[in-house]
This record gives sequence, C-alpha cells and structure tokens, in this order.
Amino acid sequence: MEFLTGVKEKDTKGIKELLQGDYEGKIVKMNGAVHSIRDMGDVAFVILRKAEGLVQCVYEEGTADFSLKEIKEESAVEVTGMVASEERAPHGFEIRLLGIRVLSEPYQVLPLAINKWKMNTSLETRLALRPVSLRNVRERAKFKIQEGIVRGFREFLFGQGFTEIRTPKIVSRGAEGGANVFRLNYFNKKAELGQSPQFYKQTMVGVYDRVFEAAPVFRAEKHNTTRHLNEYVSLDFEMGYIDSFEDVMAMETGFLQYTMDLLNRDYEPELKMLGVELPEIREIPQVRFDRAKELASEKYNRKIRNPFDLEPEEESLIGRYFKEEYGSDFVFVTHYPSKKRPFYAMDDPEDNRFTLSFDLLYKGLEITTGGQRIHEYPMILEKMARRNMDPDDIRDYLMIFKYGMPPHGGLGIGLERLTMKLLDEQNVRETALFPRDVTRLEP
Amino acid sequence: MEFLTGVKEKDTKGIKELLQGDYEGKIVKMNGAVHSIRDMGDVAFVILRKAEGLVQCVYEEGTADFSLKEIKEESAVEVTGMVASEERAPHGFEIRLLGIRVLSEPYQVLPLAINKWKMNTSLETRLALRPVSLRNVRERAKFKIQEGIVRGFREFLFGQGFTEIRTPKIVSRGAEGGANVFRLNYFNKKAELGQSPQFYKQTMVGVYDRVFEAAPVFRAEKHNTTRHLNEYVSLDFEMGYIDSFEDVMAMETGFLQYTMDLLNRDYEPELKMLGVELPEIREIPQVRFDRAKELASEKYNRKIRNPFDLEPEEESLIGRYFKEEYGSDFVFVTHYPSKKRPFYAMDDPEDNRFTLSFDLLYKGLEITTGGQRIHEYPMILEKMARRNMDPDDIRDYLMIFKYGMPPHGGLGIGLERLTMKLLDEQNVRETALFPRDVTRLEP
Repeated sequence: MEFLTGVKEKDTKGIKELLQGDYEGKIVKMNGAVHSIRDMGDVAFVILRKAEGLVQCVYEEGTADFSLKEIKEESAVEVTGMVASEERAPHGFEIRLLGIRVLSEPYQVLPLAINKWKMNTSLETRLALRPVSLRNVRERAKFKIQEGIVRGFREFLFGQGFTEIRTPKIVSRGAEGGANVFRLNYFNKKAELGQSPQFYKQTMVGVYDRVFEAAPVFRAEKHNTTRHLNEYVSLDFEMGYIDSFEDVMAMETGFLQYTMDLLNRDYEPELKMLGVELPEIREIPQVRFDRAKELASEKYNRKIRNPFDLEPEEESLIGRYFKEEYGSDFVFVTHYPSKKRPFYAMDDPEDNRFTLSFDLLYKGLEITTGGQRIHEYPMILEKMARRNMDPDDIRDYLMIFKYGMPPHGGLGIGLERLTMKLLDEQNVRETALFPRDVTRLEP
Repeated sequence: MEFLTGVKEKDTKGIKELLQGDYEGKIVKMNGAVHSIRDMGDVAFVILRKAEGLVQCVYEEGTADFSLKEIKEESAVEVTGMVASEERAPHGFEIRLLGIRVLSEPYQVLPLAINKWKMNTSLETRLALRPVSLRNVRERAKFKIQEGIVRGFREFLFGQGFTEIRTPKIVSRGAEGGANVFRLNYFNKKAELGQSPQFYKQTMVGVYDRVFEAAPVFRAEKHNTTRHLNEYVSLDFEMGYIDSFEDVMAMETGFLQYTMDLLNRDYEPELKMLGVELPEIREIPQVRFDRAKELASEKYNRKIRNPFDLEPEEESLIGRYFKEEYGSDFVFVTHYPSKKRPFYAMDDPEDNRFTLSFDLLYKGLEITTGGQRIHEYPMILEKMARRNMDPDDIRDYLMIFKYGMPPHGGLGIGLERLTMKLLDEQNVRETALFPRDVTRLEP
C-alpha cells in the first residue's frame, strides 16, 4: 500500500528561497513560464515568469546544452543553471542557463504583448482576452493587492472578536427585492440571487454578536457606468451591542488603517510596480448628508436640486471638498434620508425623515453603505406597515426581532470599488477578475 | 468637524479580558444576551451568552439595585457587578450583580429551549427555526469549527505560495452544463450558476501558478439525501508545475494535517463541547479505483455490479476496509474511469479508460474530487471531439491552452461534508448554516 504523508519536497527553487539562502555560484533548478526571449546574438535573455515575480536567465550558446529554438514565449519550462549576482536583474540575481526541460508548449503566439510593461490595448480588448491578459505582471499585481484587502478585512475583524460566516446566495423572493434582482426557478419555487447578506448577517448577530462575510452579491441593475458591476464581492460585517452607528464607522476606520499597514508591509512590490501611494488614514471626517450638500453647493456654486437625493456629481464634489479643506480622501456622510434607505434602517429619533446611517465616500465615490438597524419587533413591523410591506413575506427574518435582538449595525463595502480607488483606476472593470456587466457574461 | 480615528474603546469587558487581567473583587461592566434565568429563591443565576461563551451572573435581592422581573430570557443587557472566582462556573468566575441596563427585550418567549444543553427537537424543527436555534451553544460551536476549517485552508495554502482568487458565479452556458445547473436570464442572455470555479481556477494557474478559492457553488441535483446540498461551499485549489496528480493529493494531506493542528489549538472549547476527537493524520493510503472495489468486494462479500461506477454503499465499504485494515479514516481512491470524469480530466497514458484523478473518502463519504487536468491544446480538442462537444461553446476557456499552460491539477473539497464527518453528524444539513435542498429555500 502506498501512502501520502504531506506536502512533497521539490528540487526546484523559488525566488524567495534563492534570496534567503546562499546560492551564489550554485546550480539550481527553477520552473516558470517563458515570459519573454530577447536574443542579442551571442547571448539571449530568457525571462521566466513566476507567481513571485520575474527571473532573468541568460542563455549562451555553448554553455547551455540546448538550442534557443527549443523554447517559445509562454512555454512552461524547468531550467537548470548557475545563480549569479546581477544588480540590473530583478531581485538582484540571474540564472546562467545550462539545461532546460520543456514541460509544455503553446499552440499559437499570444494575440497581445503581455510581456510589455504597459499593454497598449483598450480595456475592451484586455477584457475580451482576460484569460491571458491577466498574465501581464501589472495586471496581475492589481489582484494581489485585492487579495491583500480581503486579508486585511478578515485579519482585522478576527482580532476584534468577529466570527466569519457563509450565508446562502440563492434566497427566496425577499422584501428587499424589487426590480434589481436576478430571478431563477428553484425546483418550481420562485427564487432570486442575494443582493446582500443583510438578513442573514443580522440573524447571525443574535448568534455570535459580531460577524463578517466576504462573498459575491448580485444586482440586476441596468446601469452601464464605470462604477457598476452586476456581480461583485461585498465585504460585509455586522456588530451587536453598539452604542450608536458611530461604532460601525469607527470599526471601518480601524479596518482601513489596519489594511493600509498590511498592504505596505506585505504587498510592497505590487504597490511599487503600479506606482500606488496608499493613503495615510489618521482620521476620517464625518458630516451630515444635508450639511454635506450645502457645503459642496456653496463652495462649487452648484444648485441643490433634490434635498433628499445625492447625485454622483454631488458625491464627487463632496469628496473634493473634504480633500481640499481637510486633506482627506475619505469622508463619512451620515443621516441619509429615510426614503433612500431600506425599511430595516433605524430612523433618527430626533427627526425620522433621516436615518442613523452613513455612506463612506472615497475620492468622491461611494464605497460603503452602513448604519444602525432596527432591533425592536414592534418598530420594524410599524415601519413595514408604513411602506405597505407584508411581514409574512419575511417571517423567518422577523423571527429574530420577535425573540430578541441586541442593538446592532453594520455595513457592506464594495471590494472592486475600494480596489479601483486605491489603485486610481478609472473603471471598476479593471479591478474585477472577470467582470459581469450588462453586456458582459464572458469570459 | 468631527472625525473618526479608529476602533472605539469600550468600558464593557469580554471574557478573555477578565481571564487575562486581575479583576478579582473588581467591579466591571459586561454585555450579552440573557441565556437563562434560574431563580433559586434567595439568589438567582442569570447566565449571559456572549460570542466567547457563557458567563454566570449571580442575582441577590438587596445587593442588586433592580428587580429580577426586569429581565427576560433573550433580553440584551449590560450588567454591572463584582468579579469573583467560582470554580463551578464556566471559565472559573462569576459576576455578582449590582446593576443592569436592559438594551432590548424580546417580544415573545422562544419557541424552543435553546438554552438546554441538547435541544430535544427534530432536525426539521431546528432547521425551520434556524435563525434562533443557532443560538444554542452547541449548534453555534459547529460553525465556529467550520470557520476554523476555512481558516486552515487559507493559512496553509498562503504558506505554500498560493494566491486567493474570486471568480464569477454567474457564468455563460458552459460545456460542463447539462441537467444539473440552475439557469437564469442575464439581460436576455442564457446564463447559469457556476457548479464549480473549474475553468476560472485553471485559467488563473496561468497567472499565479497556484490559486485557491473558498466560495459557494450551485448544483440543481434532485437528490434528496443526507449528503447532498444544492448550494454548498467548495474549497478549491489548483496548482501548476506538478509532476503528477500525487502532488495534489500530497497538498491536500498537508492541508488536513495543518487544519487539525489549527483546530486543536484555536477551537479547543468547541471541540470539547461537542465531544469531538480529531483524527491524527500521519499518512493517508491511496488505492486504485478498480483495486478498491475488489478489496471491498472480497472482504465484505459484495458483488461488483458495475466495474466503472462506485455506488455510495461501495464508498462506505471502502472506507470501512481502510479503517479496519490500516486504521485510517481517510483513503485516496485513484484512477477513476474516464467516463465518470469531465472532459478536462487527464487520461492515464497507460490506459485511457482511466484518468489521473482521485476522490478522497472520509469515513466512507466522498469529500473531495480532484486530479490532473489536460494542459495541451490538441489533446483537449481531441477529447472534446470524442465527446461531441463544440469548442466554440467554451472558446474563452480553451484560450489558455492555445496560448500555453503548465501541467497542473487541483481539487474541490465540500466544506459542509468535511465538517459533517469531522463532527460525526449524520446529515449534511447539520453543518450548513442555512441549508438549501430540493424542498428548502428558507430560512
């Protein structure tokens, strides 16, 4: 009988291993994709692409026991060669090639130059060829940083006593529903794709006090803009025993501070490659919705058309105002009008036209919506009645209030939007691996 | 202008804080849900339920400045009291109550005794009342352990140089499709819910060499069994530059070893509460599909009905065989018949009726399917042709082979199944927060 006993030791080396050990002058094996071949006549530079970065290999006829013709760009190979310091090479070393083992070969030459520093192609083309355009080192760096944001979210919240949950994405036709949901037939029942884990995460506050989830959400909105996706990743948390919705904003501020530190520490090569300077977040201003509108209107001489709505242009001006006046890329806009918030939002007891809620704007774009939720059974029933909603439609959700819930609040952060603004991208499709929009279902 | 500067310090204490500091005889504040009230006449025990565990509070008339009538089970409260050592109390201390602040009250008494050690109710009832039955400390402990499994998966794979990815769940009608997919209308295009991130994770091997994702998958299977869910969490990884599919099995073995250590270290209270003894995983036997069938058939005197299929009863017997003969709860069954595997599975070059693939059985239940994938463009086209599949249907996926892919393989682990077997549960619905099955779309 044969047995598996754990991860197998490989005789190939990684970049980190070479940098940490003393390999100068030693012969090593390394695998990777042939990212580019630059033939200079006497010598050729063969650049290997690995997850960790690029490695310069030097081919010299006579020294290497193979012909340069045996390899192609995008071949997967295992090279054998001698490690030598070389300041001008990535990571400060190169591998002088002795032998090669071709593991696989492409069938056709790439349709775009992914090995160029900047691919001179439209977003449209890059998205159509996403399965291979992501191999460009700058493209893939974006999604490493995105990985880091989610890591920051989880690590920070674990440290704050949150529990990670996983809630269903196929849900019964809910009260939040409306026009913007994807519908499906679920064994002859009417179902839809969850637009948010809202009901479930509130439910789980009754179980674990503080919970979070990082998972896909689905919105059938027909907007075709640079900031909308029809499927995106929502970073959701919900916390019980809050004194006010400021506790939620404070927690988000802590997450952002933690995550910028984590990115600076663990994703420095990617940040450098993309020329990204992360914001230093010491404090984030908070301003009431109505006051924010006034401030932007006064300073930029723009008429307030609807006192109960915030247009994208106004969001942008509010962002600009707080950048100019307070040097902050972020601003919490609080007390959104009740009409603009879902039924479960807690109204402001001092003026029930407004809610104890907020958006976080980052460089003038909404990246978070959050607030305090209603936790008393009679209050939520009353608010539903005012909106002509039938409690029977969401019996299971209302159960938690009937049997007791602590005061609580939470938020949802659009991962792709946060990444987009962090990287100063102009289109949210740049920061979704395989974006879904009104016209795009593939790749 | 007001500012948010980070997480707010609270004057309420947690259990860990009290255990780590010197609070004996000191007066503290603590919040939680009133889990149970046991009135003994002169004194009463008020048990607070917090995410971290239960806390015994002692109420004595005259000492406390409130009446016991002011609180109900499932009220959310903030208590003030003196900390005193008490060996018989959970965590070795109790709080002698002085004051209370009721934060919220239930509207109605709970329909089931969640504060009992074991809720004497059917699975059906517990699932129908899931939003509150999860408040039972043993129920919620299961999902803490599940959190730990996912943490183990991520932490282990990060350590092995994997990158975490997030792929779309709404996909175009794919080649894997067939009868078992949920269909939906996506802006007048035919779409379906991803049954697995297979194509995307393979694609991302070309980008990051090694990738993983822990996310929901959707299967419209009409099976109504104790081991099927129609939406579940799949722990997927895919790795490039493998020498054989044994590398994949070795990686899974490493994951299991790492995760058992992590659970023993960080989830000891939950394991103890549920009486779970984790398997010690030093080595996992591997056996060929055809040989496994023979062994079970010989030992348990059961006729092999179909040499190319593995029935659930056979899986169970194979599991039993390896437990009895080798003391292992786990067994890798390798070389599944080609007919039973998807087109992208790599056939065994020595006998193409079989594939370089495997299932991992745990206590006789399949919890993982994996294997080596085809990486050469002509080979995958040829296999598709043999199955009468149209390459044009999955152009975007085939693109990666056309332009070059390293040898690679991977697997998908059913999180709820793994949790179920780890906890010795008899029904997979026990280990899904809000299970989705043929008849269950709510809660």
